[in-house]
Amino acid sequence: MLISNSLGHKNINFALYPSLALTICFLFLSIGKGYGQQSLAEKLGYNKDAKLLIIHADDLGISHSENVASIKAMEEGTVNSASIMMPTPWVTEIADYAKSNNDKHDLGLHLVLTSEWENYKWGPVASKEKIPSLIDDHGYFYADCLTNPNLDEVETELRAQIELAYTMGINPTHLDSHMGCLFWTKVEVFKIYIKLAQEYELPCLVDRSFANLFTDKNEFDEFLKNQDVNVLVDYNLTISPSEYKEGPAIYYKNALRSIQPGLTQLLIHTAYDNDEMQAITINHPDWGATWRQDDFDFFMSDICKKIIEEEEIILVTWREISKALSQ
Amino acid sequence: MLISNSLGHKNINFALYPSLALTICFLFLSIGKGYGQQSLAEKLGYNKDAKLLIIHADDLGISHSENVASIKAMEEGTVNSASIMMPTPWVTEIADYAKSNNDKHDLGLHLVLTSEWENYKWGPVASKEKIPSLIDDHGYFYADCLTNPNLDEVETELRAQIELAYTMGINPTHLDSHMGCLFWTKVEVFKIYIKLAQEYELPCLVDRSFANLFTDKNEFDEFLKNQDVNVLVDYNLTISPSEYKEGPAIYYKNALRSIQPGLTQLLIHTAYDNDEMQAITINHPDWGATWRQDDFDFFMSDICKKIIEEEEIILVTWREISKALSQ
Repeated sequence: MLISNSLGHKNINFALYPSLALTICFLFLSIGKGYGQQSLAEKLGYNKDAKLLIIHADDLGISHSENVASIKAMEEGTVNSASIMMPTPWVTEIADYAKSNNDKHDLGLHLVLTSEWENYKWGPVASKEKIPSLIDDHGYFYADCLTNPNLDEVETELRAQIELAYTMGINPTHLDSHMGCLFWTKVEVFKIYIKLAQEYELPCLVDRSFANLFTDKNEFDEFLKNQDVNVLVDYNLTISPSEYKEGPAIYYKNALRSIQPGLTQLLIHTAYDNDEMQAITINHPDWGATWRQDDFDFFMSDICKKIIEEEEIILVTWREISKALSQ
Repeated sequence: MLISNSLGHKNINFALYPSLALTICFLFLSIGKGYGQQSLAEKLGYNKDAKLLIIHADDLGISHSENVASIKAMEEGTVNSASIMMPTPWVTEIADYAKSNNDKHDLGLHLVLTSEWENYKWGPVASKEKIPSLIDDHGYFYADCLTNPNLDEVETELRAQIELAYTMGINPTHLDSHMGCLFWTKVEVFKIYIKLAQEYELPCLVDRSFANLFTDKNEFDEFLKNQDVNVLVDYNLTISPSEYKEGPAIYYKNALRSIQPGLTQLLIHTAYDNDEMQAITINHPDWGATWRQDDFDFFMSDICKKIIEEEEIILVTWREISKALSQ
């Protein structure tokens, strides 16, 4: 399958979203400037039928392994964007990289409400007292997305994560959500995500599957319209556990060979299959250490670069899109 | 030098304690039962001139590398005691080990008020709002011990760490202090440490260098006496950076060959010199990855076991001491 049915991460129940060919939209929230008569490709200076692609690494900050592999994949491979998990132990390392590349990095915030690994944990950025319902009795986030979280506490925590990024000097280029907790649980949670993106004037990943949160598709469209946003309809791809079992290189080659005109985002996870990553992902081969090494290897490979060239795929970043839409 | 002048850790200013031959005492705080007429060795069933030794690994929880190396050194080497840092990301892994060995482990709490590594950080266990003066603007502990911390906040945080240990099922055998922040900064901080040890009925490491916190030695002795504690005067050893440069094996062999009758504690740090540990200790060779691998190697070695046997050193644990003193 080329078009994945999830922005997948561990513990997400794929069965919940079986029929969604995930059209990717993103909201550009700054001052209501839209595409007007031009397509995004044209706004970026390309032919309107150009095949635009963001190759996006999730989970930066989770480990040294993830950080250094993702930086290498951005600097020497084909990965051109990534997002950072602010509550994680290694975020200082990636913040230093961001500060050193402040005018050119494409690093967003992978907003976090979970701590999903067995032996390796993180808690919230906000004061624990302010968000008691989001944490377990050890002070960590729960392993899975909460289906009915306290909305005030969600906003407090997400705001704290964004504020910490700026305090650390990161200047994020976009927002998205770890394990999709802001995408598929509750419409009010999704609305907090949109509200914060608007407030901080940051583009944020939105998927048409979120329409399921609303009474009907029209209500979803109306909500986005009233948020004064520009929706770019495109494709969001990520490999699923079953596709991984058939071979990640097969999936990725097919995905790249099948990129359509418009904007596609390909979500991956790049890390080294070393002691640290194996210990973090213990008992969870899906999105585990070997998986992340395979992602790294493919997006560092010559075959990946060759296909991108042969298919005339244009790699674009959130920073470039943001700039084009604000002009 | 056989007798070290510090319970050293990185960033501790050794120059502050140049002349202290650190006599180790510890306080046994349960119900005022003392040695009476018997020495600790006799209480433990040994000759009164027995050479008792605790080989103690600090910093458990800091990393997977530190955890697995220290567990191996306890199970297969000569390390027989260790202490855990509750705010660290890998504490769940070591808590699981503690729970699986609940009736036999010798795992205390290495109470933490610092987050000293460059790219890898942790914050407090208590709610950040309750201890604002103990954390930086990123929500982490400061890199060094605070010289004049808010006492209420110190107590709140230390209590939270102890409570979390019990919540996680660790059942600690003793208390000590990471980087000596509770030992050498301020008498009121030391008194909080003693107060908590007494309250939780846990033996805690105390050093005669703490007498410097008091107006005079008599006041120190009086304080300990009024705490209804039993002080065991012995030797506390740990390798210093200058001694490490001369060769850790030389230091440790000499230390073991020179153990005196009574109780000695030898503080070490065991971890593997791998990617994770090198990244954590970046730009800090003192107590760095190579240092910790050297500690691991020596206390796993046959020569270490041979010297202990030849010198008729008896390895004892905090658990055994605690039990002997409470009888």
